[in-house]
Formats: sequence, structure tokens, C-alpha cells
Amino acid sequence: MRLQMFDLAGADPAVRFSPYCWRIRMACALKGIALETLPWRFTEAALLPAGHKSVPTLVHPGGAMSESFDIAVWLEEQFPDTPAIMGDALGIAHLRLIAAWTEAQVSAALVRNVVLDIWSALAPEDQAYFRESRERRFGASLEFVQDGREGRVEAVRTALQPARMALRKGPFLGGERPSFADCLLFAPFMWVRSISLFDPLEPSDAIFAWRERMLDAAGGVARAAARAV
Amino acid sequence: MRLQMFDLAGADPAVRFSPYCWRIRMACALKGIALETLPWRFTEAALLPAGHKSVPTLVHPGGAMSESFDIAVWLEEQFPDTPAIMGDALGIAHLRLIAAWTEAQVSAALVRNVVLDIWSALAPEDQAYFRESRERRFGASLEFVQDGREGRVEAVRTALQPARMALRKGPFLGGERPSFADCLLFAPFMWVRSISLFDPLEPSDAIFAWRERMLDAAGGVARAAARAV
Repeated sequence: MRLQMFDLAGADPAVRFSPYCWRIRMACALKGIALETLPWRFTEAALLPAGHKSVPTLVHPGGAMSESFDIAVWLEEQFPDTPAIMGDALGIAHLRLIAAWTEAQVSAALVRNVVLDIWSALAPEDQAYFRESRERRFGASLEFVQDGREGRVEAVRTALQPARMALRKGPFLGGERPSFADCLLFAPFMWVRSISLFDPLEPSDAIFAWRERMLDAAGGVARAAARAV
Repeated sequence: MRLQMFDLAGADPAVRFSPYCWRIRMACALKGIALETLPWRFTEAALLPAGHKSVPTLVHPGGAMSESFDIAVWLEEQFPDTPAIMGDALGIAHLRLIAAWTEAQVSAALVRNVVLDIWSALAPEDQAYFRESRERRFGASLEFVQDGREGRVEAVRTALQPARMALRKGPFLGGERPSFADCLLFAPFMWVRSISLFDPLEPSDAIFAWRERMLDAAGGVARAAARAV
């Protein structure tokens, strides 16, 4: 089955930094599903299939879909012979809470620290859109928002505490093997890694060691990914 | 199968407030498993089975166990004909992360706001132990720690945001029916409700409506529970 995903790209089209797209790239890598990624920019809404406005947008033989969580559920259903990463219906419901946690508490703690670095990595046509929309959201310049990030490192580490506790029980959030929970938490780290030198983790942190395992997972697809920095 | 659980009690032995014990009371209620609870106090370590030091301690025909998460896994395995609340092995791994989130971010945001109320609800012999151990942990008097809690309501609401997002998809964190994820998040609310009038939730909050559903779940066992206030 041919699968194509519109994947947010920087000025360098090889740099892919969307955490929502990284959820799907890692899910496919863990499941061994071939995924063709198409570089896409914020200002290229017209290139997406009709009715779709954001990435990831997955194009498959039966149509297209855009919500990363729904795409993961669909992949799990469509490829039952690949390694399970979500579990049964109850497991999927619980993953929704985990997804919300990574968005509301992990990505939310990270975003201020890299928002100017994201802008720096974008193509010129995207930079204007990004600056205007994000400065409106934050009510301040990107420079002001990102400034002083070293003082916010501890807040990021605190936000990660649930994962640190869960990792006492096994090498991955999914247990012995990485699951979609690992993809969900790893995605914001790939978002940061792709466009920034900011790193809130110390090498002694269990999350650091877990992130190394995820960088090496599925043949090291994440470690090999292009970086703008 | 006869199951007995040592369950932390207040001065009024009917008041049971341990969030870890509430995880198991709700799990058994949702699964329709009869559970006999034995009121236990902080200063009654000698009453627990040998080798056990904290509650919940579950006593079953094959022995005893004390970690609430392990007890829930055991119940799921031992009673396969009751409603599943954990899911498969992947689901259990993911629930560990959810358990850690409720501890590190939800209970942690709540505890300062009710710690003096807990003390007030305890039997005299427990009060001395509790005050000494908690004041050492916080480095301040219980009165000082709890003071000003109205100013900390917003932090509690923010900590709950992942659940608020997940509840957009269904009435319970488990989906259409409550699961152990619901027990994990509901437990700290029962902890607070049992011993305090503090409530960080507004009636317009989706978490408030979810909490009402959990109070009514399984015949309303939680709503009927004794309160010290």
C-alpha cells in the first residue's frame, strides 16, 4: 500500500520538525511500514488534498486523513501483522490521555524555548506567517518569548517527571519495546532537535537515556534525520 | 475468593481517604469484585501482614500484596470474567505512565491545599506522626503549607488539562466506560473529598462533570463514602 505524508519542512526541505508528523514517522518506523514523506510548508495549504488544512496529512489508496492520533489508529488497524504499538480499545483510549499530556504539559513547557529557533529554520515565505501568528498567540516578539530559556530548563524537567517514573519499570514507555506512547513523547524532542541546540536534559537523566534508545530505534531513523543546526 | 484490604482511616473509622486505597476500591467496584476493607491507621504498622508496611495491603487466599498498581494488575488477571479496566500488556505499560502523571502532577498540585485538613481528620495517635513526618517533608508547618490555597486553584486546574482534553472524546478516560485510568485520576479527588471542603473545580469544567459520573459509577459507592467534613 502506497502511503504518502505531507510533512512540515524547513528552509532545507530535508529538515522535518513537526512533532505531529514525527509521531507518524516513528509509528511507521516502529511498525516497519514504508512511508513516503512530501516536504510541505506552512504557506502551501493549497497543495494539500481538498478539505485538509494541516500536517500530517496522510494520503492512502482510500483517501486522506489529517489528525496524527487518528492516523496512528488507522495504521494499527490497517497493518495488523506489524508490531502493535497502541494495544486494544482501552489502550487507545489511554493513549489519548498520554497524547494530551505530551501536548499540554511537555510541548507547552518546551515551545517558548525554541520558538525563535523554529523561525530561523523556516523558508522565507514561511517566516512571515510564523512570526505573525506566533507573536499574536504569545502577545510578544519571538525574541522576547525565547529569551532566558536557561532559566526555564527546570520547568521542562519537572513536566517530564511522569515519564521518568514510568521508565523505572522498563526501557520504554511501552515496556520492553517502544510503543505509540514513546512516539508521543519522543515527537517533541525531535521537534526541538531538528531546529535547535536547546536541550533541557542532562546525560544523567533517565529520559536522556530513553531518548538515546529512541534515536537508535528502528534502525536509527530519528538519529539520521536532518537538522537545521 | 475472599479479599480484604487494609484501608487508611481517619478518626472516624468510616472515613477512608488514601488515594492509593481508592484506586483499588474503585477498581473492585467497577469490576464487581467484593472487597472487605479493614480500617487501618498510620500508627498500626504492626497490624499489617509480615513484610508489609503501607496501605493498600490486599490479603488474598494466596498471600498479601501492597503496591496499588500491582494489585490492580493482579485483580485484572485473577478475575478475567469481570469488565476489563486495564487492557492488554501494552495498555498496562501505558497505565503506569498515567499513574505517574496523577501522582507527580495532579496529587502533587493538590497536596499542599489539603494537608492540614488531612491532619484534622486523623485520630489523635496518627496526628502526631503525620504532622512530624509532613512538616519535615515540606520544611514548614502544616498551617503554613496549606495557607493561601485559593491562590493555587489555577495550578491544579492547569495540571488537569490533559484529562480535560482526553474527555473531549468520551465520557470517561477509558472511553465509553470507566477504566483504571479513571480510577487513577479519581483517587486524588476522593482523597480530597473525604477530608476537605476544598474543591479546585468549577461546575462548568468537563472534569467536574466527569467526577460526577465517577461518583455515580458502580452504584455510587464513591458518593456514598463517609466524609470527615
